[in-house]
Amino acid sequence: MRPQQIIAIKRDGKALSDSEIATFVEGVCDGSWADYQIAALVMAIFIRGLNRREQYAVTAAMLRSGEVMDFSDIDAPKADKHSTGGVGDKTSLIIAPLAAACGVAVPMISGRSLGHTGGTLDKLESIPGFNVNLSFPKFKKVLKSCGLALGGQTEKIAPADKKLYALRDATATVPYIPLIVASIMSKKLAEGLDALVLDVKTGSGAFIQKYAESVKLAKALCETGKTFSVNTQALITDMSQPLGKYVGNALEVYECLKILRGEAEDTMNDTLELSIELTATMLVQCKIATSMQNAKFKIKNALDSGEALNRFRKNIELQGGDPKVCDKPELLLAKGLIEVPILSETGGYVAEIDTFIVGRAICDIGGGRVKAEDGVDHAVGYACLKKIGERIQKGDELGIAYCRRKNQAASVSEKLLGAYKISKEIPRTTTLIRAVV
Amino acid sequence: MRPQQIIAIKRDGKALSDSEIATFVEGVCDGSWADYQIAALVMAIFIRGLNRREQYAVTAAMLRSGEVMDFSDIDAPKADKHSTGGVGDKTSLIIAPLAAACGVAVPMISGRSLGHTGGTLDKLESIPGFNVNLSFPKFKKVLKSCGLALGGQTEKIAPADKKLYALRDATATVPYIPLIVASIMSKKLAEGLDALVLDVKTGSGAFIQKYAESVKLAKALCETGKTFSVNTQALITDMSQPLGKYVGNALEVYECLKILRGEAEDTMNDTLELSIELTATMLVQCKIATSMQNAKFKIKNALDSGEALNRFRKNIELQGGDPKVCDKPELLLAKGLIEVPILSETGGYVAEIDTFIVGRAICDIGGGRVKAEDGVDHAVGYACLKKIGERIQKGDELGIAYCRRKNQAASVSEKLLGAYKISKEIPRTTTLIRAVV
Repeated sequence: MRPQQIIAIKRDGKALSDSEIATFVEGVCDGSWADYQIAALVMAIFIRGLNRREQYAVTAAMLRSGEVMDFSDIDAPKADKHSTGGVGDKTSLIIAPLAAACGVAVPMISGRSLGHTGGTLDKLESIPGFNVNLSFPKFKKVLKSCGLALGGQTEKIAPADKKLYALRDATATVPYIPLIVASIMSKKLAEGLDALVLDVKTGSGAFIQKYAESVKLAKALCETGKTFSVNTQALITDMSQPLGKYVGNALEVYECLKILRGEAEDTMNDTLELSIELTATMLVQCKIATSMQNAKFKIKNALDSGEALNRFRKNIELQGGDPKVCDKPELLLAKGLIEVPILSETGGYVAEIDTFIVGRAICDIGGGRVKAEDGVDHAVGYACLKKIGERIQKGDELGIAYCRRKNQAASVSEKLLGAYKISKEIPRTTTLIRAVV
Repeated sequence: MRPQQIIAIKRDGKALSDSEIATFVEGVCDGSWADYQIAALVMAIFIRGLNRREQYAVTAAMLRSGEVMDFSDIDAPKADKHSTGGVGDKTSLIIAPLAAACGVAVPMISGRSLGHTGGTLDKLESIPGFNVNLSFPKFKKVLKSCGLALGGQTEKIAPADKKLYALRDATATVPYIPLIVASIMSKKLAEGLDALVLDVKTGSGAFIQKYAESVKLAKALCETGKTFSVNTQALITDMSQPLGKYVGNALEVYECLKILRGEAEDTMNDTLELSIELTATMLVQCKIATSMQNAKFKIKNALDSGEALNRFRKNIELQGGDPKVCDKPELLLAKGLIEVPILSETGGYVAEIDTFIVGRAICDIGGGRVKAEDGVDHAVGYACLKKIGERIQKGDELGIAYCRRKNQAASVSEKLLGAYKISKEIPRTTTLIRAVV
C-alpha cells in the first residue's frame, strides 16, 4: 500500500488496520515514507483521533521497531518507575536503590532534561565519573550485582519513536494522548518488565497541566501496559510547586543522598513521601509486599538499615562514579557559585508557584536544555525554601538561586519572584498524591 | 511566528489571519518551512477547512510568490480559457485561434498531460518544431502578431504552487476545493487577464466526478476570479465520455485542424459545439459581442472565412512549428502504428463509457504520463467511434486504438472494451453543457 492510500484513510476519519499501522511505522524506520508523508499522517491522526485498538497497534509497531531487553535469567521481579516529567522531580534516584534493597530488579532507562523539566541522566552525570552509556551486557551485569542499573535510551530501543517525536515537535502534534502513550510505552515495554509504576504529574510544572487530562493520560497508559501484560499502575501527583527542596542536577542528587542517609530536611519531606508511595506501589505490584502498609514497613527498614544507600553506593561504583559522594554528599556542591536570595516583597501566604517558570528560569541559567543538542551546567539550580501554604513576612527568603555568573542574578531573580503569588488569605492546601489509577 | 504556532492554529480549527497565511506561503518559497511542516499544515487545512477569506488570502499569497504578466500595451481585451482536465479535451487549440480571429488577445498558459488526462503542451509538441518554451518578450511578440500565444508555466509564475502541489500529491491532500481554486487561480491571475472562461468538467473522466462538487468548484473559481477583478465565468460540461473523436496528442491536433478547416466529422461535433460555446462566452465577457447569439455569428464568420485557421497557421509559424499541417492535417498522423479495433461483444445501446479507464488505457500505451518526469508518445491514441446513446450490433467497432507495439494490443483492447457498458434499453442521453455558473 502506498503512503498516500494510508494517509487518505485517516484523513477521512476512518480507522487504520493493524497492518496499515505496521506499514506506517516500518516506513518511518526504513525511510520508505518521506518526512512530509509521516507529518501529514500524524496531523490527520491528531485531528481525527486513534481508537484504542489503533493506539495499541501503534505502540506494538513502535516496540517491534527495536529490541526488547531480555532479563529472563534474573529471578527477581523486574520493575521500573516512569514520570511524565516535572521540576525538582528526583524520585528515581531514591526509588531505584530503595526498591532494589527490597528485592526488585530495577533496569531503569531514563531521559535527559528538555525544556523546563529535568532529566535523570543529567542528574546522574553530576556524580563525578558516572557512566550512563553502558552496553547491554554491562547494564545487565550491573543490574545483577546491585539490583539496579541506570542508563539512557539506545538506538536499539524503539527507534521509530525518536524520529516520530522529532517530527511531532516540529509540526505541533506533540500534545495528543494516544501518541504520548505510544511514545512512552513503546520504550518502557522494551525494558522487559513485570511491573511498571507511573508518576503522572499534574499542575503548573507538568507537561499536561489539567487534572482531567492527566487522569485520561494515566488511564490510557495503564490500559496499554496491561494489554501488553505488564502490571501497570499510575499515581497522579502534584506538580503545582517544585518537588522537594532543590531544582538543579547536582543539588537534586545531594537531596536524594541526604534522604537516603536519613538526613532529610523539612523541605525535602515531599520528595521522601512520594518516593515511598511509588516504591510501595511497586513492591505490591511485584508481590514482594502483601499491602501498602506492609510495603512501607519494608521500605522503612531498607532506609533505616542503610541498605538503600548501600545499593546506590554499589551502583555508583559499578557505573564508574565516585562512591564517596554517598558518605559526603557535600562533595557534590560546587564552590564559587553566585547565591541570589529571592526575597518576598510582601507578607502573607504562598498561594501559588508557577512551576513552569521556575523550571524555565533554571534552564535559562544553564541547568537544562532549550534544544536537545545543548550542554548542561550541573552545578546551578534553585533551593525552594517556602512551599505553598506557608506564612511569610515581607523580606523573607522564598528561595535561593545558584548561578554561575553575576550578570545572571537580576534576570533569574525577577523570573523566580514572578513565579510566586502571595495572598493575604490562607490558600487551599495542595495534596501530593492526587489519585491512584 | 514559528511554523509550529501557525500549524497549531489550524490544527485546532481556527481561522488563519492573512499575515499568517502570507508567512506560510513565503516559507514554502524561501525554504524556511520544512516540507514536513508544510505537509502538516496542508493536512490540517484539508480536514479543518479554509473559509472564503482564507482561500482568497492563499490565492493572493501564491500569486504574489511570482510575477504577473504585463500586457497593458496590448489594446485588445486579454482573455483565456482554463479546463479542469479531461479525456479528448482539445478545445484550447480551437478556442485560442477562434477568439484571436474575433479580436481577443489570448495569452494561453497550459499544462502537460498527467494521469488519465491530456495536456495542451504535449498536443502542441506533436506539431513538428513547435516550441512551447518561449521567453516572456518572445511570448508577447507572438501574442501581438497573431492574437494568441501558447506556452507553459515558467518558474516565475506562482512558484509556491509547484512545490505545494507536489507535496499535496504525495500526502493525499489534492482533492480539496479551496486549495484547488488557489492552485488554478494563482496561475491564471498571473496572466494579466481581463476575462477568464472556465470549463469545469463533470463525470467519469473528470478529476472531480460528482456534479454537485463540480458546481461547488465552479462557483468558488468564479468568486475568486471576480474578487481579483477578473471577469470570470464557468461552464459545467460533460466528461462522461471522451470529447470528440480522438484521444491522443497528434490525433487531437488533427481533429482540431479538421474542425478549423470546416471538415469536421460527425464524431467531432461535440468538440466543435463546446469550443463555440466557450469562445462565445469569452467574446461576451470581453464585450466583443453583445450576446451569445451575436458572438456565435462572429464565430461562424471566423470559421467560414478561414480566419481562425489563418491565425493558428501564423501562430505555428511564429512558434517554430511546421505550418504545412494546417493545409494537410494528415501529415500529423504517424505511419506504421498497430490499429486495434475494439469490437462490441453484444448488441444494444452504448449506455456508459468509463472515461477514466479510456484515459488511463491511452496513458498506459505511452500517450500520457504516469509520473511528471515520464516522456510521451505523441502518435498513439484512440478513435472513439460510438458515443453514448448510439445503437450498435454485436461485432460493431466501438473504436480503434492506435498503439506502437503488437504486444500492447491485447491489454489495451481489454481495458477499452471494459470501459463500455452496453444495455438493451435506450439510455438517458447526455447533455454537453450541463450548466453555466
